[in-house]
Amino acid sequence: MTGMSRRRVFGLAGAGVALAGAGAAGAGIDRALGSAEATTDVVPFHGQHQAGIVTPAQEHLHFAALDVTTKDRAKLVSLLKTWTDAARRMTAGREVGASGAVGGSPAAPPSDTGEALELPASSLTLTIGFGPSLFDDRFGLAGRRPEALAELPAFPKDKLDPARSGGDLCIQACANDPQVAVHAVRNLVRLGFGTTEVRWSQLGFGRSSSTSTAQTTPRNLFGFKDGTNNLKAEDPAALDEHVWVTAADGQAWLAGGSYLVARRIRMHIETWDRTSLEEQEQVIGRTKGSGAPLGQQAEFDPVDLHVGGAGGEPLVPVDAHIRLASSESLNGAKILRRGYNFVDGSDGLGHLEAGLFFICFNRDPRKQFIPMQKALSAKDAMMEYIQHTGSALFAVPPGVSESGYWGDTLFEG
Amino acid sequence: MTGMSRRRVFGLAGAGVALAGAGAAGAGIDRALGSAEATTDVVPFHGQHQAGIVTPAQEHLHFAALDVTTKDRAKLVSLLKTWTDAARRMTAGREVGASGAVGGSPAAPPSDTGEALELPASSLTLTIGFGPSLFDDRFGLAGRRPEALAELPAFPKDKLDPARSGGDLCIQACANDPQVAVHAVRNLVRLGFGTTEVRWSQLGFGRSSSTSTAQTTPRNLFGFKDGTNNLKAEDPAALDEHVWVTAADGQAWLAGGSYLVARRIRMHIETWDRTSLEEQEQVIGRTKGSGAPLGQQAEFDPVDLHVGGAGGEPLVPVDAHIRLASSESLNGAKILRRGYNFVDGSDGLGHLEAGLFFICFNRDPRKQFIPMQKALSAKDAMMEYIQHTGSALFAVPPGVSESGYWGDTLFEG
Ligand code: HEM
Ligand code: HEM
Repeated sequence: MTGMSRRRVFGLAGAGVALAGAGAAGAGIDRALGSAEATTDVVPFHGQHQAGIVTPAQEHLHFAALDVTTKDRAKLVSLLKTWTDAARRMTAGREVGASGAVGGSPAAPPSDTGEALELPASSLTLTIGFGPSLFDDRFGLAGRRPEALAELPAFPKDKLDPARSGGDLCIQACANDPQVAVHAVRNLVRLGFGTTEVRWSQLGFGRSSSTSTAQTTPRNLFGFKDGTNNLKAEDPAALDEHVWVTAADGQAWLAGGSYLVARRIRMHIETWDRTSLEEQEQVIGRTKGSGAPLGQQAEFDPVDLHVGGAGGEPLVPVDAHIRLASSESLNGAKILRRGYNFVDGSDGLGHLEAGLFFICFNRDPRKQFIPMQKALSAKDAMMEYIQHTGSALFAVPPGVSESGYWGDTLFEG
Repeated sequence: MTGMSRRRVFGLAGAGVALAGAGAAGAGIDRALGSAEATTDVVPFHGQHQAGIVTPAQEHLHFAALDVTTKDRAKLVSLLKTWTDAARRMTAGREVGASGAVGGSPAAPPSDTGEALELPASSLTLTIGFGPSLFDDRFGLAGRRPEALAELPAFPKDKLDPARSGGDLCIQACANDPQVAVHAVRNLVRLGFGTTEVRWSQLGFGRSSSTSTAQTTPRNLFGFKDGTNNLKAEDPAALDEHVWVTAADGQAWLAGGSYLVARRIRMHIETWDRTSLEEQEQVIGRTKGSGAPLGQQAEFDPVDLHVGGAGGEPLVPVDAHIRLASSESLNGAKILRRGYNFVDGSDGLGHLEAGLFFICFNRDPRKQFIPMQKALSAKDAMMEYIQHTGSALFAVPPGVSESGYWGDTLFEG
C-alpha cells in the first residue's frame, strides 16, 4: 500500500472492489492506472447510451451548466472533441492530457490540475446534455431542435432563480469520490476556457434515489427511502419505453439519447421536522420506517391506490406524493429519477439551505416530467414543504463510439 | 447483508473496517447499533480532549456557526446538556432521541429526522467551540473570556463576508459519510430551535490535510499534497506544546481545550491553472509530483530553507508558502491544520466558487495562527491566487466526561 490511501481504496465503487493496491508512488505519478485491479472501479465510457444514466447511482455529484461564449460552430465542435478525449481519459482513471499534472515542461501550465492524482477512477461517469438555447441561431442548429426540447413551462409555486436555471450545455459528473467528480468538471471547464463558461454548478451527495435493484434504497433529507418505485437498470424493456429516445420520436440524431430534467428543490426541513410522523407518512404515502406503501407490509410490496381505510377514505391519500406521481395516475408515464441531496450552507435567515437536486431522465418530457410536475405542483401535499428554485432541461445525446465524439450525431448528421 | 448498503459498508472509516453486516432491516430500525462489528467505525465521544481534533481527519465536513438567540443563561446551559446527550448517541451511530425516527407517537414529530437510518456511525465526531461574542454581557461570562479569545485582526487583502464570519458557537461535524455529518448538524440545530440559529454553515470534502502518519497525504485543489509537514496525532509531545491549552495559560476552564481558527479561503483556480508548473512549485516550495521540498528527494525529507541554487538564491524562495509558514521562520510556532476542500457552485462570473475551508487548532492564536497569517498575508506568493472570504475564532473546551456536558467547566466552574 504505497501511493493509494486506505480511504480511497474503501471508497471504491460497489461492484468488485478488488482493493487495488498498486498505486502511484514516488516517481510513478500517473493515476491508479495500468493495474488490473484498479480497473474494477471504471465505468466504460463508450456504448450505445451515455454512462451516468442507468449506471447504478454513485455517491457524489458535480453538475455544471455552461453557456457557449463563441458563435463559431467549428470552435464548439472542436471543444466537444477535446472534451470527449478528456472524458475518455478521466473516466478510465487517467489524467486529462498526455503529459498529465507533472510530466510536461516546467515552463508551461500542467495539462492536468492534479488534485485527483493517486485517486482511482471511482466509477466516474461524465454525461453531457444540450439545452434548448443551443438551438438558437448561433450554430445553425435551429432545424435540429427536437420539439420536446422547449423551455419547461412555469409551474405553480415555482420560485426559480435565473442564476440557477438554464444553460446551453450541461455536464453531469458522478463518482464515488467527490474530489474525482470535482476534478473532472474543473478540467472540462478549463479546456472550455474561451469557448464556454460556467453558468451555474451544484454539488450533491448521498444519491437521493436508487437506480439499480442491487442498491439498498437510500434516504432523502425528509428521512424517507427514495427510489423504491424507480425505474431500474435491470429492466431494459421499461427503459426502452420510458427513457431512451428513438429515431421515430422525431430527430434521428437523438436516437439512443434521452432528456435530462434538473430541478433544484429547496426543502423546508425545519417545517418538516415539526410535522408529526403520521402527517409525514400521509404526505409521502409510505411508512417512514420500512418504506412500505400505506396499507402494505414491506418496502417493495406493490402500491395499491385503492385500499380503503376505516372511514372509506383511501389509505394512500388523494394528495399523497406517490399517488400523484404514480404511472397509474399519469396514463402510464414513468421517469428514471437520479437526484442527489444538497446542503449549500445557510439561507441567512437562520436555516440550513438544504434540499434535493432532482435529476430525472425521460424519453419525452411533454408526456412524462411535465404532466407529472403539473400534477405535483398543483396538488401534492408535499408542496407545503418544498420550493423549486432552479430548473433546466437538456437533450442528452446517445453514447459515443470509440472514434466518435459527444454530439457527433447532431453536428455531423 | 440486509439493511446496510454496500456503499455504506465500503464507506467505513480507515481503521478496522470489519465490514459490519448486521444492519437495520425491516422492523429493526435503529441505526447499525448493537452489532459488535459496527462499532469499529465509532470514534469515542468521551475523553480528556474533544474528538475531531487529533482524530485522523475523516472524509467529509459539515461546519456550522450559530448565534444564541436567548439571553437566558439557564436555557443555554440546558441546550448544551441536550446537545451533549444527542452527540453521545449520534457519534455512537444511534438516533438522536430514545424514540428515534419512527418509534414515537404517530401524532408527534419524530425525535430523529431519519436520513441517517441504516447508516453506520461513519467515524462521526462532533466538536463544539465558543466564539468571543459569547463572552459579552448576555450570559455573565465576560470575566471568563480568555485573553487569546479576541476577534482576529484584519489581515492585508482579507475580503471577509460578515455572513460567513463569526458566531457565538460552532459545531464541527466530521464523518466518512456526508449524510451522517449533515444529519448530525441538522439534528443539533433542530434541538436548538428557539435558543440558537444558524449563522453560517459550510460543507467540505476530501480533507485538505492529513493529521495522522497512518494517512496518505491528500491533495488540495491546487493539486499539491497537503499535510506533509503537519502536526500529527502520533506526536503527543508536539500536541501538548502547540495544541492543548493548560490551566497555566490563563483560564482554567479551557485546560485540555484548544482554539479553532476557521478561514474560508476562495482559490482562484482558473488563474492558478494558467500558471506554469515551475511557478506553482516556487509558490508552494515543494514539487507537485512527490511533494518533496525543493532541493530534496522525497515527500517526508526535512525541509531545508538554506540550500542554495545555482545563482546563490535559496531553492525554497523567500516568498514560498512553506518558508513563511515554517516554524523556523516563526519562532517555533506550529499549528494543527485540519481543513477541507469546498466547491460552492459558481460565482456568477463564469467560474467555480472553489477553495479551502481552512481549519486549524492551536494553543494560543496570538502566538501561532496570527503571526503566521500576518506573514503569509504580507509576503506569501500564494496570495495572488487566493482570497480569504470568511473568518472565525472559537475556544474549544476540553473533552467531556461520561457525566459531564459540553462547556461544563465554563458554566459550572
Ligand atoms: C424534494 C422533493 C421530493 C421528495 C422529497 C420526493 C420523495 C419521494 C419519495 C420518498 C418517494 C417514495 C419512494 C419511491 O418510490 O421512490 C417518491 C416517489 C416518487 N417521486 Fe418523488 N420526491 C420529490 C420530488 C419529486 C418530483 C419533482 C418528481 C417528478 C416530477 C417526483 C416523482 C416521483 C415518482 C414518479 C415517484 C414514484 C411514485 C410511484 O410509486 O409510482 N418526485 N418521491
Ligand atoms: C488556500 C490556501 C492554502 C493552501 C492551498 C495551502 C497549501 C499548503 C501546502 C501545499 C503545503 C505543503 C505541504 C504540507 O506541509 O502540508 C502547506 C504547508 C503549510 N501551510 Fe498552507 N496552504 C494554505 C493556507 C494556509 C494558511 C492560511 C496557513 C496558516 C495561516 C497555512 C499554514 C501552513 C503551514 C504551517 C504549513 C507547513 C509549513 C512547513 O513546512 O513548516 N497554510 N500549505
